[in-house]
Amino acid sequence: MPTLKTLLLVFDLCGTFVFALSGGLAAVRRGLDLFGVLVLAFAAANSGGIVRDLLIGATPPAAIGDWRYGAAATVAGLLTFWWAPLIEKLKNPVRMFDAAGLALFAVAGAQKALAFGLDPVMSALLGMLTGIGGGMARDLLLTDIPMVLRAELYAVAALLGASIVVVGSALALPTAPIALLGAAACFALRMAAMRRGWQLPVARGGRAN
Amino acid sequence: MPTLKTLLLVFDLCGTFVFALSGGLAAVRRGLDLFGVLVLAFAAANSGGIVRDLLIGATPPAAIGDWRYGAAATVAGLLTFWWAPLIEKLKNPVRMFDAAGLALFAVAGAQKALAFGLDPVMSALLGMLTGIGGGMARDLLLTDIPMVLRAELYAVAALLGASIVVVGSALALPTAPIALLGAAACFALRMAAMRRGWQLPVARGGRAN
Amino acid sequence: MPTLKTLLLVFDLCGTFVFALSGGLAAVRRGLDLFGVLVLAFAAANSGGIVRDLLIGATPPAAIGDWRYGAAATVAGLLTFWWAPLIEKLKNPVRMFDAAGLALFAVAGAQKALAFGLDPVMSALLGMLTGIGGGMARDLLLTDIPMVLRAELYAVAALLGASIVVVGSALALPTAPIALLGAAACFALRMAAMRRGWQLPVARGGRAN
Repeated sequence: MPTLKTLLLVFDLCGTFVFALSGGLAAVRRGLDLFGVLVLAFAAANSGGIVRDLLIGATPPAAIGDWRYGAAATVAGLLTFWWAPLIEKLKNPVRMFDAAGLALFAVAGAQKALAFGLDPVMSALLGMLTGIGGGMARDLLLTDIPMVLRAELYAVAALLGASIVVVGSALALPTAPIALLGAAACFALRMAAMRRGWQLPVARGGRAN
Repeated sequence: MPTLKTLLLVFDLCGTFVFALSGGLAAVRRGLDLFGVLVLAFAAANSGGIVRDLLIGATPPAAIGDWRYGAAATVAGLLTFWWAPLIEKLKNPVRMFDAAGLALFAVAGAQKALAFGLDPVMSALLGMLTGIGGGMARDLLLTDIPMVLRAELYAVAALLGASIVVVGSALALPTAPIALLGAAACFALRMAAMRRGWQLPVARGGRAN
Repeated sequence: MPTLKTLLLVFDLCGTFVFALSGGLAAVRRGLDLFGVLVLAFAAANSGGIVRDLLIGATPPAAIGDWRYGAAATVAGLLTFWWAPLIEKLKNPVRMFDAAGLALFAVAGAQKALAFGLDPVMSALLGMLTGIGGGMARDLLLTDIPMVLRAELYAVAALLGASIVVVGSALALPTAPIALLGAAACFALRMAAMRRGWQLPVARGGRAN
């Protein structure tokens, strides 16, 4: 089915592009130079997929072996470098695209892990990791505690989407509709969590730092 | 020898559990949410083994391919999330279990590296890395300089245990007693170092920060 | 051609040694203990090559499978531990050796990536990563934002050297002279950038932090 494959690649590159925007913006805000902006854009877009591919033994990772991922991240990085103030104003569209990227990466990550023979629970977790890994790398490179460890239902939304893919695969349901359902569920939960400020609980024993 | 293998797995999962407690507690103290606590628990328990497996080419890493490691870390993470104040009170038992986990991970890590054909010196170092890697990942995710780079004889104890395994293997001594000896030596050195405050030297040129 | 191979190994170990000095010095300055100094020396010298080898699927990485890399890093780490004030005085020679190490790692990294079948653009980027990865690991372990993301033309020099290797390979030019040319270009650009304070631009939208 070349059409489905092409569609998935287009979605994947769109996700790469939007995540790269988030990395580039963070780098511009912290005063990094042009190279730093491009590195942050690449890391935010591709770290999740790279770590997933290393863990499942798929070397070289897709983001390294296929130049289009690097190109999408570089274009996004250059855009943030030249037009950061403009992109900052588009905050709401960017957050919507970010939720779309999260949905797509989580679904595609879970599918790839299943295809490499990982068990269902780990495939769901690797799908989640594909979605959230880029943001974690972005924050760690800027020596911030990864936002996903504190923020609204970000990882949970990715886990929901990935889990739907895994359950659908276990029930031998058709791949494409299940992938769309997983992505839609992830996207909807993420958007709702942002709008309503849904949060995961924090332990009583903790103290804010 | 299924008995030895079962015993090693039990020890391995106990080590995973105790290291996960340390990661979960650190996350609760820093005010991370439920997901952050679970991630820190998993990272503290399994990062050392995952990095070792990536370096020796054993993909997928055991902690990814076998659900029991993730389950042990998750249970420990939930315990710290709900009962952090209680676990904090058990500080001494936790430190003792931590020393036991360090001993077991160092020994098992060195054995696995040898089994994958690494040379003796690197196998000892990879055993050490298996023991200390989880704590380093825990600290880096919270943007602290890894404690093991500053603290008492932690890495040295792991290196001692791993080296005993490597030397025993080079002399073709029986595996099980040597593994126990290595674990016991690591455990004893770590406990003594904690009780007596043994430290590695710091360079004269350095200044505290 | 054993002579060329030996020459490359000697250069590679020299690069390892000099990068390890930079890691050890940074650790001494931050007051880490002896173990921390050795870890930083090893990480600064070998992280770039290790990450490159993981990404191209060459496990175990050269720095893990060949004891000489660890030995060179350890000797350098011990030197910084005992004689940090002395080495600090040699600042200019160290910076020159650092530029030489960067040149050699970038060239060797690009050659290895090409040999593993990576496409030209990614081979150039992996050569750059081999050169700059160690310094990034050094800074992240000390929870600093990697200097290479903010500093003078450091990564650009590495990318120049690696690109010359890749272009030469695409044109089927002889390997050894092209490698020397790439290394010389990287070294010259890096030295000139240091002397004249050449910088990459910073985005207007950014604010210093």
